[in-house]
Amino acid sequence: MGAAIATYLVPNNGKLEQKAEQIALGLTVGSWTDLPEVDQQQLAKHKGEVVSVQEVSEEQGLISISYPSVNFSADIPAILTTVFGKLSLDGVVKLIDLDFTPELARRFPGPTFGNLGIRNLLEVSERPLLMSIFKGILGRDLSFFEQQLRAQALGGVDIVKDDEILFDNPTSPFEQRITIAKKVLQETEQVTGETTLYAVNLSGRSIDLIEKAKQAVYLGASALLFNVFTYGLDTLQALVEDKDISVPILAHPSFGGAITASASYGVSAPLWYGKLLRAVGADLVLFPSPYGSVALERDAALGIANELNLPHEFWKKALPVPSAGIHPALVPKLFEDFGIDSVINAGGGVHGHPAGATAGGRAFRQAIQATQKGIPLIEAAAAHTELAEALRIWGGAS
Amino acid sequence: MGAAIATYLVPNNGKLEQKAEQIALGLTVGSWTDLPEVDQQQLAKHKGEVVSVQEVSEEQGLISISYPSVNFSADIPAILTTVFGKLSLDGVVKLIDLDFTPELARRFPGPTFGNLGIRNLLEVSERPLLMSIFKGILGRDLSFFEQQLRAQALGGVDIVKDDEILFDNPTSPFEQRITIAKKVLQETEQVTGETTLYAVNLSGRSIDLIEKAKQAVYLGASALLFNVFTYGLDTLQALVEDKDISVPILAHPSFGGAITASASYGVSAPLWYGKLLRAVGADLVLFPSPYGSVALERDAALGIANELNLPHEFWKKALPVPSAGIHPALVPKLFEDFGIDSVINAGGGVHGHPAGATAGGRAFRQAIQATQKGIPLIEAAAAHTELAEALRIWGGAS
Ligand SMILES: [Mg+2]
Ligand SMILES: [Mg+2]
Repeated sequence: MGAAIATYLVPNNGKLEQKAEQIALGLTVGSWTDLPEVDQQQLAKHKGEVVSVQEVSEEQGLISISYPSVNFSADIPAILTTVFGKLSLDGVVKLIDLDFTPELARRFPGPTFGNLGIRNLLEVSERPLLMSIFKGILGRDLSFFEQQLRAQALGGVDIVKDDEILFDNPTSPFEQRITIAKKVLQETEQVTGETTLYAVNLSGRSIDLIEKAKQAVYLGASALLFNVFTYGLDTLQALVEDKDISVPILAHPSFGGAITASASYGVSAPLWYGKLLRAVGADLVLFPSPYGSVALERDAALGIANELNLPHEFWKKALPVPSAGIHPALVPKLFEDFGIDSVINAGGGVHGHPAGATAGGRAFRQAIQATQKGIPLIEAAAAHTELAEALRIWGGAS
Repeated sequence: MGAAIATYLVPNNGKLEQKAEQIALGLTVGSWTDLPEVDQQQLAKHKGEVVSVQEVSEEQGLISISYPSVNFSADIPAILTTVFGKLSLDGVVKLIDLDFTPELARRFPGPTFGNLGIRNLLEVSERPLLMSIFKGILGRDLSFFEQQLRAQALGGVDIVKDDEILFDNPTSPFEQRITIAKKVLQETEQVTGETTLYAVNLSGRSIDLIEKAKQAVYLGASALLFNVFTYGLDTLQALVEDKDISVPILAHPSFGGAITASASYGVSAPLWYGKLLRAVGADLVLFPSPYGSVALERDAALGIANELNLPHEFWKKALPVPSAGIHPALVPKLFEDFGIDSVINAGGGVHGHPAGATAGGRAFRQAIQATQKGIPLIEAAAAHTELAEALRIWGGAS
């Protein structure tokens, strides 16, 4: 029989064992010691069990509870309701981790493509991938879209993603973005010799998403961007599990801060963006980098990447995409922090290059190549104009 | 042209105007003053506008921004992504309120039944409704279910709801709970002369919910309970908008604390449980009462009820269901705080009655009747054994 083991951060009230017992019973069979023995026999397999109780400090404690999977259906809504439904409303408590036993873990798909699958599509191995974002696209027409896409692809960007706030709209409709991107990327591939994926923002009503995603694939979309937390993790899982939606899915952390930002409430970033998104099948996961103004703490960001990259019996590895505040001078740091199985993602760091987005992309690729070879950027810049200009703008030139 | 006007609580950094401008631009067109005039003309209708900036204290400020609805599709995922997507990840900020202009508000259904529709079903007017919850149901068989349901209905409970942690399971399957409830409630109606609704917990995979809900209605379900926040608000809206799902829907606040519990991050309780759940069409909304151990602050609880009850051009009124810690002695207080257009909901306060759940239901109905007539409970108890016993247990007897 499987189980979900939840770990909670709670205030240390000096009675952590008692609190743990209350949670284990309160969220499962309700009561125990006052039950007749015949009822205890019937309910034994449903009873939550305290796995561990640990004082972290004088102020805080960690409590782990195992919830038998016989209590819930094998879906994220039932599991979240079980382990953090009523409890989320019951005072100061943060859900830090959630472990699935193998019987339960295998019920979740994990990524369809994952790290290796995406590398196969791109024919790129042994370097971090490069992603960039449209800039100031809201309200612009399709020619603006086409021009920005071309410039990014020509710069050697592997994946170009929609802005997450660009929805289906009359000025740049979803379907036309896909067909234009298909044409543009076929053309740039002739020039660069490289494949570029375009991640179109899948948006609209939940009930239409599956058909819309299938239509996107039919029209030639090469990837999907999805604001998963405004829909629900299970909705992403349904997209992942549909065999006709045969493209990688990028999960955007939009609205995620509402759940992860507090130190005392909600859900930890490594669990929310890392383990759970991988379980339901995100191929790539965007999250705030530890470097920019929209920043996540270093431990949290590395924790997410770790969850996406850990070996797992059933789930492929997903690609971490630390985002915001990324520019070419940060590439060695990104290698150090996130390794080669990650995506270097920039907006301003590509479009803000003095010579334009194509040069911006090239500067990143030059920085990546140099770092792979162990060459300091400043040395590599001597032979690469675009990188040299980037380092002058963003630092690292001297 | 419509708009969504979002209000944020932020730290007062002494530069609130500047922060407000940054948000208004950053979440829409990106930049403004450095744009050529021709671009400004193209983008003017997309630009976010600062509506107001207010210092609340030396520590905190409120900022209101209007987001033109041309920027997003008229659905909750697009709106939440626009107003609190990236921003939720950007430092200390809480989404306090969200106003829709009429053009936008009319795109959301509001409750199908609402307060009056539910009263019509029950043929009850001018008193708060009475709801109760199954107790210790996890792992129990269908005969236990049947017995508890009957006892509650015979006590005069208007709506009996499933425990939100009871999912579809082999011991008490969803479909069998519905068919048994239909039979039991037809029988109890012969005894009490009153209609009782049973809210079955609609659970499982998102993609199956519509068909499952239709099947529930076909089998005779009289209401649905839904853990909306583990699925997504838009998923609830899809259930509401399906004409074949012709029964009231109770939204459960499960997992909601992950979004609303922090004072500095996430979303305010009146917006999350009140305005937004009403917009997408919940007929009844459960939330922690201000009285129990799982408690919401009084202002927040009253704020939710207020949002559900306010007159609105397009949306029917939804019924607030303050829950947890409710017993018969609290009835006058519940009248005072939530008025007659609310639901009095108890678990332990019904099942914990010394003479059983039927007596527990009766004690509540006696307390409600007395309070309606302006009779103090202690006086009413002289003529009503069940109420007298309840007051002895839960206080209010002297
Ligand atoms: Mg963006
Ligand atoms: Mg419950």
